[in-house]
Amino acid sequence: MDYKDYDFGLVGLGVMGRNFILNVADNNFKAFGYDLDSEKVEALKTEGGDLSKVSASTDINTFVQALSTPRKIMLLVPAGKIVDQAIDSLLPYLDKDDIIIDGGNSFFTDTDRREAYLKEKGIHFFGSGVSGGAEGARKGPSIMPGGDKEAYEHVKPIFEAVSAKYKGEPCVAYLGPKSAGNYVKMVHNGIEYAMMQLTSEIYDLLKKSCDLSNEELNQVYASWNNGRLQSFLVEITAEIFTQKDDLTSADLVDMILDKAKQKGTGKWTSQNAMDLGIPVPTIDMAVSMREISALKDERVQADELYSRPEVPHIAKEELIAQAEQALYFSFIIAYAQGLHQLSYASKDYGYDLNMATIAKIWRAGCIIRAGLLADISDAFEADNDLPNLLLSPSFVSKVQGTLPAVREVVAFAAKSGIPVPGLSSALSYFDAYTSTKLPLNLIQAQRDHFGSHTYERTDREGIFHTEWGK
Amino acid sequence: MDYKDYDFGLVGLGVMGRNFILNVADNNFKAFGYDLDSEKVEALKTEGGDLSKVSASTDINTFVQALSTPRKIMLLVPAGKIVDQAIDSLLPYLDKDDIIIDGGNSFFTDTDRREAYLKEKGIHFFGSGVSGGAEGARKGPSIMPGGDKEAYEHVKPIFEAVSAKYKGEPCVAYLGPKSAGNYVKMVHNGIEYAMMQLTSEIYDLLKKSCDLSNEELNQVYASWNNGRLQSFLVEITAEIFTQKDDLTSADLVDMILDKAKQKGTGKWTSQNAMDLGIPVPTIDMAVSMREISALKDERVQADELYSRPEVPHIAKEELIAQAEQALYFSFIIAYAQGLHQLSYASKDYGYDLNMATIAKIWRAGCIIRAGLLADISDAFEADNDLPNLLLSPSFVSKVQGTLPAVREVVAFAAKSGIPVPGLSSALSYFDAYTSTKLPLNLIQAQRDHFGSHTYERTDREGIFHTEWGK
Repeated sequence: MDYKDYDFGLVGLGVMGRNFILNVADNNFKAFGYDLDSEKVEALKTEGGDLSKVSASTDINTFVQALSTPRKIMLLVPAGKIVDQAIDSLLPYLDKDDIIIDGGNSFFTDTDRREAYLKEKGIHFFGSGVSGGAEGARKGPSIMPGGDKEAYEHVKPIFEAVSAKYKGEPCVAYLGPKSAGNYVKMVHNGIEYAMMQLTSEIYDLLKKSCDLSNEELNQVYASWNNGRLQSFLVEITAEIFTQKDDLTSADLVDMILDKAKQKGTGKWTSQNAMDLGIPVPTIDMAVSMREISALKDERVQADELYSRPEVPHIAKEELIAQAEQALYFSFIIAYAQGLHQLSYASKDYGYDLNMATIAKIWRAGCIIRAGLLADISDAFEADNDLPNLLLSPSFVSKVQGTLPAVREVVAFAAKSGIPVPGLSSALSYFDAYTSTKLPLNLIQAQRDHFGSHTYERTDREGIFHTEWGK
Repeated sequence: MDYKDYDFGLVGLGVMGRNFILNVADNNFKAFGYDLDSEKVEALKTEGGDLSKVSASTDINTFVQALSTPRKIMLLVPAGKIVDQAIDSLLPYLDKDDIIIDGGNSFFTDTDRREAYLKEKGIHFFGSGVSGGAEGARKGPSIMPGGDKEAYEHVKPIFEAVSAKYKGEPCVAYLGPKSAGNYVKMVHNGIEYAMMQLTSEIYDLLKKSCDLSNEELNQVYASWNNGRLQSFLVEITAEIFTQKDDLTSADLVDMILDKAKQKGTGKWTSQNAMDLGIPVPTIDMAVSMREISALKDERVQADELYSRPEVPHIAKEELIAQAEQALYFSFIIAYAQGLHQLSYASKDYGYDLNMATIAKIWRAGCIIRAGLLADISDAFEADNDLPNLLLSPSFVSKVQGTLPAVREVVAFAAKSGIPVPGLSSALSYFDAYTSTKLPLNLIQAQRDHFGSHTYERTDREGIFHTEWGK
């Protein structure tokens, strides 16, 4: 083995890590992996990479010494303490100006803390979101780096080579200082939560109200994926309906338990949006629904206690057509909420984000890639200061036309007892966001009545208080 | 002035603090106040208290020396650093075993930290929620103490005397160790956010769809307050519609700007529920709606871009009757979500809460007091381990009957473009929580497809992964 000859190091040889290394090697960079687990190290060597370009070790010194300087070492390990442990185990072996990249879903304030910690030690550190799952890592993910721009320049040729391409453009770009990369990836995942929830609600609606078979559901989602709903999540949803179960030969989707897990990025998106004061109710609702799904025992008990309404008759074709509009509308709302959050975070945290760039690097490679993102990047190219996608002239016509169907679907689901919390939240959000006048004057009156919290007026400036009832 | 003769000290002489002191004095305890602001000190002395029992000073030594030992000093100051500053300014003057009570809305982990900090110094410290606004503080609030039980015993006679009474029973009880008091108060406020949002949505619905005047709205809410919706918030809402504006003689409610403020307890409730993994979507939505309300400029812009549907005709009496059912249903859901969170927090944080006790001390004095709380305390007396109010047999009949109307109202609002996000979220929550089968099997399939995140099965134990599409 030639020492100091490898262009790129990667710590954490899970599926994502191994695939990322193979992808780096495919692009003519030499990549070296490190993991304490010898099975993973061996797995990498037998997964079909060009072994003149790919190697790995369970020995940290061997790993570090294999890399050319300044070393470029990416961590793909679970968020939290493991990242700190990985950093601390590397530190004794590194030289000044080496570069560590956190490619995992670290919480953004942890990234800021680590950057400061490593700067003191002369090591460059930046966080970079990576989205695309196992297949994306292998064939081209969307990559969201931020932080130390100078350090990023060293890594840029590799990232641009390995990233997904949208019409030839690499789906990677430097996004902004500090934790901008991890922050953007966090919100990406929040949007992902919402889109997954919405996709699953529509599945439920079609199945419960018109008894669509999995074969029909496959056809519906596949046809949608050929239209304006074209997206990775709709595409794999169509595929999922055709998958047979190895164990029972039944359709696999029907054998999967309806308790959804989460790793925290959706929750963080919601919690942080609340800190910023930006509403993302459809993301919040997606988080709530994963929680409700996990309470299966309570749900089973509750189901026995209440009777459900009859589902009113509706023609299958009519419902499918309305559902397509509802999904399109609510996908737009999911993006609108997440991007709204990013616009405000950009100011509050000093990320100075280019919104069009973000939409562009999401057009391929990542889990929320969709035809819509080309329209979204156009909208922000026209106006980077657009506070909300719903204010973009090009989106007004897209949204307005779907509304009659959206209203019908929400009303139908309410009457049928079929929960569409994500879709309902999207419609409520739309109706509230587009209302000059909301009834929260009453809330301000209540707050002033019981707590002397004061209020503003419609007809003059200032802060007012009333002795109510006197 | 007799030194060491005052039973109770209070730091922070805002409206709440002054009123609380006057309440203590009304109950034959001598109370001494402290505030740096001499105007507030003077205000206290001129607000009609018995000056043989009430005094105050801007001098901290005078304040501390006036109190009998062990001193019982309550802080009613804004949450955050001011609490720490108040504690640190008191410390040099205190003796071992003196007691500090934080009566504000401190975040619960701050309370745990302060308890440990003061324990080292030989000072007892506990957090105690106080709800009831200015009037409650004066005439009897609901008080939610937790933490150091021995210290609480010293304060108990005073708290029991000053608290609100429900059929003679004091609305105060020791709730559990550590920050149990602040935690329960935080969730109380989360429920309050939801109830305020729901009350305001129904106001909006009645006004926009049947053009009810403020006089009619007063009659509607006043009549509801005489029925099963009897509650402080419905009562003051009725009053609010009759209040005239001093400046214009118009109805004051119409002059109040629809931008609602928040102090953070609702947000904390939502954020912490997400950490616990317990869904409180109606509280989340109330937080979102305050945020949307604050984005007034964006709303005005958005309103100009979209056209709104016509509101379908509906008979006024029919809508009012349905709205009553919708409000009753959604109030139950708001309590159910908050209490669900408390049940789980009780285990996770070791509070060992008695749920019936909590419902009992909320029956009078606090902002969310309502006739429903007597039913809720009965439900938890029957079963303290009830995970969710919706599983209580006595609530099944209350809820089931409202559902047809709730479904009609949500459907009507969706078609009319009138946002009822809180009510919709309550219905979605109900429909999901009472579903044995949710479509989140699809979400698990998606997660396994793109991220190898594995899934569970309906027909056998274990963790499974599929190579999708192969």
